[in-house]
Amino acid sequence: MAPAYKLTYFPVEALAEPIRFLLNYGGIEFEDHRFDRENWPQLKPNMPFGQVPILEYNGKVAHQSVAMARFFAKKVKLVGNDDWEDLEIDAIVDTISDLRQKIALYHYEQNEAVKESRKEPLFKETIPYYLQRLDAIVKANNGHLAVGKLTWADLFFVALLKYLCFMCGSDIIADYPNLVALKKSVLEIPAIKNWVEKRPKSDM
Amino acid sequence: MAPAYKLTYFPVEALAEPIRFLLNYGGIEFEDHRFDRENWPQLKPNMPFGQVPILEYNGKVAHQSVAMARFFAKKVKLVGNDDWEDLEIDAIVDTISDLRQKIALYHYEQNEAVKESRKEPLFKETIPYYLQRLDAIVKANNGHLAVGKLTWADLFFVALLKYLCFMCGSDIIADYPNLVALKKSVLEIPAIKNWVEKRPKSDM
Repeated sequence: MAPAYKLTYFPVEALAEPIRFLLNYGGIEFEDHRFDRENWPQLKPNMPFGQVPILEYNGKVAHQSVAMARFFAKKVKLVGNDDWEDLEIDAIVDTISDLRQKIALYHYEQNEAVKESRKEPLFKETIPYYLQRLDAIVKANNGHLAVGKLTWADLFFVALLKYLCFMCGSDIIADYPNLVALKKSVLEIPAIKNWVEKRPKSDM
Repeated sequence: MAPAYKLTYFPVEALAEPIRFLLNYGGIEFEDHRFDRENWPQLKPNMPFGQVPILEYNGKVAHQSVAMARFFAKKVKLVGNDDWEDLEIDAIVDTISDLRQKIALYHYEQNEAVKESRKEPLFKETIPYYLQRLDAIVKANNGHLAVGKLTWADLFFVALLKYLCFMCGSDIIADYPNLVALKKSVLEIPAIKNWVEKRPKSDM
């Protein structure tokens, strides 16, 4: 029988990888459908709001990668113990998404002059501002990004990190020891380790 | 006794208003703390990740407006009937946030030439693209943005709409009859109607 869940995305990690980490963490079978970039113009008009990843399940189609990650976080029990803890986890996840969007605004800018003008504020101010605070949170939270235990916020950050570093052209967490330790601990989870070893190769 | 929840924001609606709508909808008492803009430089360094709104409760501080809105949506029972429905609601809320960020990228751009270059793509392509799809979703969902019934996605959209229109300088939903009807129906909910009548006056 085909898996119940089908995840459709570009042949890269990027926005789909937090979802793939959660699916693998929980041992949930899924079809990891990766389309060729040359087919995107044909596919785009059929996507809700023109974006991927999408998730198909039971004849229904969902969109928005963070919403999908939260859905599977509940399934694999990487959520908080109460609504306030879930608020803290959601806040960190949205903060990581804010950082991603600020980096993307630089990386994907087509006007070279505008891109160059964004470089120094991004690398000298924005990225250190976020990473210093995230590093301090991990230090204060027993090695985790929220509520003192492993949650989907940790998997979300580590899964997205390669894409963030790809857009920046550097290992952005190298100077943040608590984030380095968090990355190591997530990548040592057996189900995650196994997935990272077997997943298709990709730059981002 | 002071209310258990304290919400701190600029003296405007904008990102805090979805949270205020949900609190009022559920009859949850809260301290609606609005600081003067001139005090923001002193306050900003003490805010998690330098942003507002923040929510204080029981000695703890939360940030990220969408995460707070989701927290109160659970309290006032404007969520889905199962995890998949919550995924659909979350996806629409994140889509509305995407639209807000695209509008903000135009509105807050300081370089006049860059701002001007963003105007036509935003007003001729991006905004119609999103609003046509949201309007069709409301038409197909019994007058609502998700799962065929009133959810926090509806309150989120209507509460944020004045801010979106402020940034655009126009009533962006005027040509979308299902969105106009949604706005009307949310503003006719007695607790929301009462709040909108009594809330402090603001442009955005």
